[in-house]
Amino acid sequence: MADRTFDYPNLGNEMYRWATDLYPICRSLTGQGVRETLNYLSQELTALKIMSVPSGTHVFDWTIPKEWAIEDAYLLDPNGQKVISFETSNLHVLNYSMPIDIELPLDELNNHLYSIPDMPTAIPYVTSYYAERWGFCLSQEQRDSLQDGLYRAVIKSQLFDGELNYGEFFIPGLTDKEVLISTYICHPSMANNELSGPVVTTALAKLIEQFPDRYYSYRFVFVPETIGAITFISENLAHLKAKLVAGFVLTCIGDDRNYSYLASREENTLADRVAKHVLYHHTKNNFKSFTFLDRGSDERQYCAPGVDLPVCSIMRTKYGEFPEYHTSLDDLNLISATGLAGGLEVVHKSVQLLESNKFYKVSVYCEPQLGKRGLYPTLSKMDEDYTDARTLINLITYCDGKRDLIGIAEKIGINALALIPTVDRLVSEGLLLSNEQAF
Amino acid sequence: MADRTFDYPNLGNEMYRWATDLYPICRSLTGQGVRETLNYLSQELTALKIMSVPSGTHVFDWTIPKEWAIEDAYLLDPNGQKVISFETSNLHVLNYSMPIDIELPLDELNNHLYSIPDMPTAIPYVTSYYAERWGFCLSQEQRDSLQDGLYRAVIKSQLFDGELNYGEFFIPGLTDKEVLISTYICHPSMANNELSGPVVTTALAKLIEQFPDRYYSYRFVFVPETIGAITFISENLAHLKAKLVAGFVLTCIGDDRNYSYLASREENTLADRVAKHVLYHHTKNNFKSFTFLDRGSDERQYCAPGVDLPVCSIMRTKYGEFPEYHTSLDDLNLISATGLAGGLEVVHKSVQLLESNKFYKVSVYCEPQLGKRGLYPTLSKMDEDYTDARTLINLITYCDGKRDLIGIAEKIGINALALIPTVDRLVSEGLLLSNEQAF
Amino acid sequence: MADRTFDYPNLGNEMYRWATDLYPICRSLTGQGVRETLNYLSQELTALKIMSVPSGTHVFDWTIPKEWAIEDAYLLDPNGQKVISFETSNLHVLNYSMPIDIELPLDELNNHLYSIPDMPTAIPYVTSYYAERWGFCLSQEQRDSLQDGLYRAVIKSQLFDGELNYGEFFIPGLTDKEVLISTYICHPSMANNELSGPVVTTALAKLIEQFPDRYYSYRFVFVPETIGAITFISENLAHLKAKLVAGFVLTCIGDDRNYSYLASREENTLADRVAKHVLYHHTKNNFKSFTFLDRGSDERQYCAPGVDLPVCSIMRTKYGEFPEYHTSLDDLNLISATGLAGGLEVVHKSVQLLESNKFYKVSVYCEPQLGKRGLYPTLSKMDEDYTDARTLINLITYCDGKRDLIGIAEKIGINALALIPTVDRLVSEGLLLSNEQAF
Repeated sequence: MADRTFDYPNLGNEMYRWATDLYPICRSLTGQGVRETLNYLSQELTALKIMSVPSGTHVFDWTIPKEWAIEDAYLLDPNGQKVISFETSNLHVLNYSMPIDIELPLDELNNHLYSIPDMPTAIPYVTSYYAERWGFCLSQEQRDSLQDGLYRAVIKSQLFDGELNYGEFFIPGLTDKEVLISTYICHPSMANNELSGPVVTTALAKLIEQFPDRYYSYRFVFVPETIGAITFISENLAHLKAKLVAGFVLTCIGDDRNYSYLASREENTLADRVAKHVLYHHTKNNFKSFTFLDRGSDERQYCAPGVDLPVCSIMRTKYGEFPEYHTSLDDLNLISATGLAGGLEVVHKSVQLLESNKFYKVSVYCEPQLGKRGLYPTLSKMDEDYTDARTLINLITYCDGKRDLIGIAEKIGINALALIPTVDRLVSEGLLLSNEQAF
Repeated sequence: MADRTFDYPNLGNEMYRWATDLYPICRSLTGQGVRETLNYLSQELTALKIMSVPSGTHVFDWTIPKEWAIEDAYLLDPNGQKVISFETSNLHVLNYSMPIDIELPLDELNNHLYSIPDMPTAIPYVTSYYAERWGFCLSQEQRDSLQDGLYRAVIKSQLFDGELNYGEFFIPGLTDKEVLISTYICHPSMANNELSGPVVTTALAKLIEQFPDRYYSYRFVFVPETIGAITFISENLAHLKAKLVAGFVLTCIGDDRNYSYLASREENTLADRVAKHVLYHHTKNNFKSFTFLDRGSDERQYCAPGVDLPVCSIMRTKYGEFPEYHTSLDDLNLISATGLAGGLEVVHKSVQLLESNKFYKVSVYCEPQLGKRGLYPTLSKMDEDYTDARTLINLITYCDGKRDLIGIAEKIGINALALIPTVDRLVSEGLLLSNEQAF
Repeated sequence: MADRTFDYPNLGNEMYRWATDLYPICRSLTGQGVRETLNYLSQELTALKIMSVPSGTHVFDWTIPKEWAIEDAYLLDPNGQKVISFETSNLHVLNYSMPIDIELPLDELNNHLYSIPDMPTAIPYVTSYYAERWGFCLSQEQRDSLQDGLYRAVIKSQLFDGELNYGEFFIPGLTDKEVLISTYICHPSMANNELSGPVVTTALAKLIEQFPDRYYSYRFVFVPETIGAITFISENLAHLKAKLVAGFVLTCIGDDRNYSYLASREENTLADRVAKHVLYHHTKNNFKSFTFLDRGSDERQYCAPGVDLPVCSIMRTKYGEFPEYHTSLDDLNLISATGLAGGLEVVHKSVQLLESNKFYKVSVYCEPQLGKRGLYPTLSKMDEDYTDARTLINLITYCDGKRDLIGIAEKIGINALALIPTVDRLVSEGLLLSNEQAF
């Protein structure tokens, strides 16, 4: 897989178009917005399965909540003017608000308003999934302009026994060992957090589908954050523990600022090693590394004690680390085609590296004679440029059956991806054996 | 044990009073001074057992020496004036001096005088346990004032087949796993080294006696240094190797300067981990850490090869590290009620941490739903103060059955003592299991 | 072995004399020069066995090449003047040149000339063992003075089915566990690289022969580099894997500049630990340490995957690290009697340390009573100089049966060689047991 060139810029444009289409949908933990989003993605991934779990179902320590439907919401000021409207921005309504139609003075209304004093133009994103509340979110500027008097608050929502939905897409490989890609689809109109994850995941799935010789099987899940991941794990725990070799949570992966990595709880699983190696070389060691103590997305579930799956996160600018996080300012201007393309490239390279990351062992004792294979200069001379030959010999000398490709590459200080063509050639010549062969 | 408040200042006053009472006694490896000291302490610890081992008994590579009794000692100058008297300070006589009554000129006498030129006012503390000598210790100032002439040296001592004594105090717990506290009672009139150790040990024993629910059994030993510890170990080695989980040597633990820790030979036993964790947080990482190469007290015996007990030392200013060490300047002005109280508090907290330092494992898969347990805010909002909730979740997520409380606390950067109430609550709610339960 | 004094300076003079005698010989991978060199060394090591392997023999991935004989070589300029002659320097002919007798103009001749523009006075050392070429090596100065015109190039060489030779010298010890010393004898007239290795190896073998009580057996090999080492390994692999405890490649060990160490592939074998410990103390930590990635001599074969022998290199200034490397400037002025003596001393001390590097365990519980053994001052006094006693006690307290002498010495910060007499005394007193005894 490694020796092909991929048109990441063009894929970036395509991902940006998908994000633009998906942006207006009002997503939440459950409901129509989630289904619309999954339906849209199934245009690209036709085998995407949309799963359904009824409200009230117990999933480990949790219970699937009621489904939330939102038709409209607005706030009328004392003059009967509609000062806040769900139609303007779905962030205006407290996500998972109970229905309300009430008149109340400003000082009482204030208990139901959410704004950010330090970010006067931003509408904050606030949720109340597990306690029944109602409320409106608005910019501090708008809040400051509200005059005293009696307001009418209308939220035409419903909380009812419905279902929780998530999407699952599976690509079989030569073996039933699995790689998991997990992203989430529960955020309303915000771009980096979180349309970037779903569109990069979709583009990655399409790339992986094109390789008939993939070693691993790949499972992609599009879940509502936390409760969706818990539901998916509760339905698949034994399978995942038996089959998963590595997994990545993709989130906040569409802007042009940082590249970021967040460790699994075990800290140095195969997933972590792959992600760190690829990010190190892709960014020339200019990426941000976070520990599991900085966690905040579905790695919390995948890495929980007893679950213990080898899953880390690959991001561009991490949630909570950019000022627009969880506000209306995280819009389509925050992400870009190049930002998404960069995120895709890093994840795609991680998968490519996973595919080639076998244990290798040289098949002869002592150094092989490279000259007779046309691999080495036959003239010994001090000022010869031996750089490539040196790398080749270093590679071979650390193929001792005890190191995988990443381990070898890090020992000899080379990008493992750059070694793949050489390794493939040496394997085909019989000079290297991989752990799939007897050694 | 951890959620109680203790009146350390008042305990400090009490300990200082004990030290004041014990200060004048002339202690040595053996003899009346040791017995008087143990008898005094048995007023506080009524079950204190006073052990006796006859002179000549073989203990490992050593032999219990003759018992030493000292009635009086003085030096008469050429004018018959008593220039040195045992009654003035028991440091004046070389500890374990043989008896003598001799007249000799100053130049010969000088071979039997000990002083410290660099500390002109200090009487040094000098011993000769294993070779028969006699001598007087005095300040350099006094020595310089001695005039030429014939002196009479009188030491009314006896070396005879008697006994070596040490004290042992045992508090049973729910299990027969033991914690050892060891201190020494062989130093004559000096305060930090060494009345601080015995009085802090006594106060600690009284505190531990008050807890009926203690998990461990506790053994306190008051031994003459080196030979006493060797004797105690020789009589209890198999038991100690089978039962001891942690031990602490308490010495030089009564001044107000440093807190200090000296590692066991194995360096990272449970005792070491507890001591370092408690000292780190108690002092905000402002304590002195010594390696086993800096050793000098009974950890030399407890950690010897073949003995291999998990014992480290907790001190305030370490022996050899304060200028007054082993001189008459190590008097009751050097220690204080607050100094002793601080030493007691650190050791007491170490014991409290030991008691709660189990392995914990969360009982549910994935993150527990804290909201339904009233443990977590139900409203997600960016500017909420999640500090406590974050610590709670971090605690739970590292309860993987593979880490003890200290390991978890250090992973999440929290004082383990502060976690105990929360851990206890989570255990009582069934959300955490400890290694005493099945997991 | 450690408590004797050795006349290294005199041995240095002797080694320098051997190097002077051997310098003019035209060595190569095979041929008369190798045999002459081995014959010369067998005057010192009478039991030196000279091995022979026919051309065409397969040794692992390699084939023994044809033998090379060189009778004469010269270049006649357009005036018939002999401007280059093999008789002047055997470096002038490309090592392993095929025979030639040809007339050709300067521009064609240039394809067969080797010089170093940046080192105008140096004749480079160039080889072409595995591809048939012919050529002359000369200084850049001489090359620049060549006038246009027709030249006659004559190389009276032969490449024919002959043999490859190497030398092997074995000294039996009390056990059949082996130490290997490997050096190479294929370089023509150069001094540091490589007559220093063979002469130091020879002197070392003579020193070791003098000790009847040596614990290990010693095997010394003098091989043509690479192909010779591969041949030796191919004939002895099972034996070496079963018996070898440590090995050293000796090369570039005769100048007065650096001391250098190059790690084995496994990096911390017994050989590495010994070499680093000795070099650290011999040079007061002023030596150069190279990783296996910097390798370039026969450790490449000894440490290859599947071979995996514990072999590192001890050098003075490493190949490739001195400007005269692989040129005519690496002559008898570059090495010296003191340089060779220093190299010998370090290797000899490494062998001495190996011989004493057992695991030790104290035979008594708790600290032994040193006073009764006359090992410790019996008077405790603060200003006593306890330095040596402290080292003695530190030594004993780390003799726990889990550390070898090097481990103990590094733990207590002492040169292990300095501890050997004390260890020997304590063993003879029964206070220490070694792992050869039951413990």
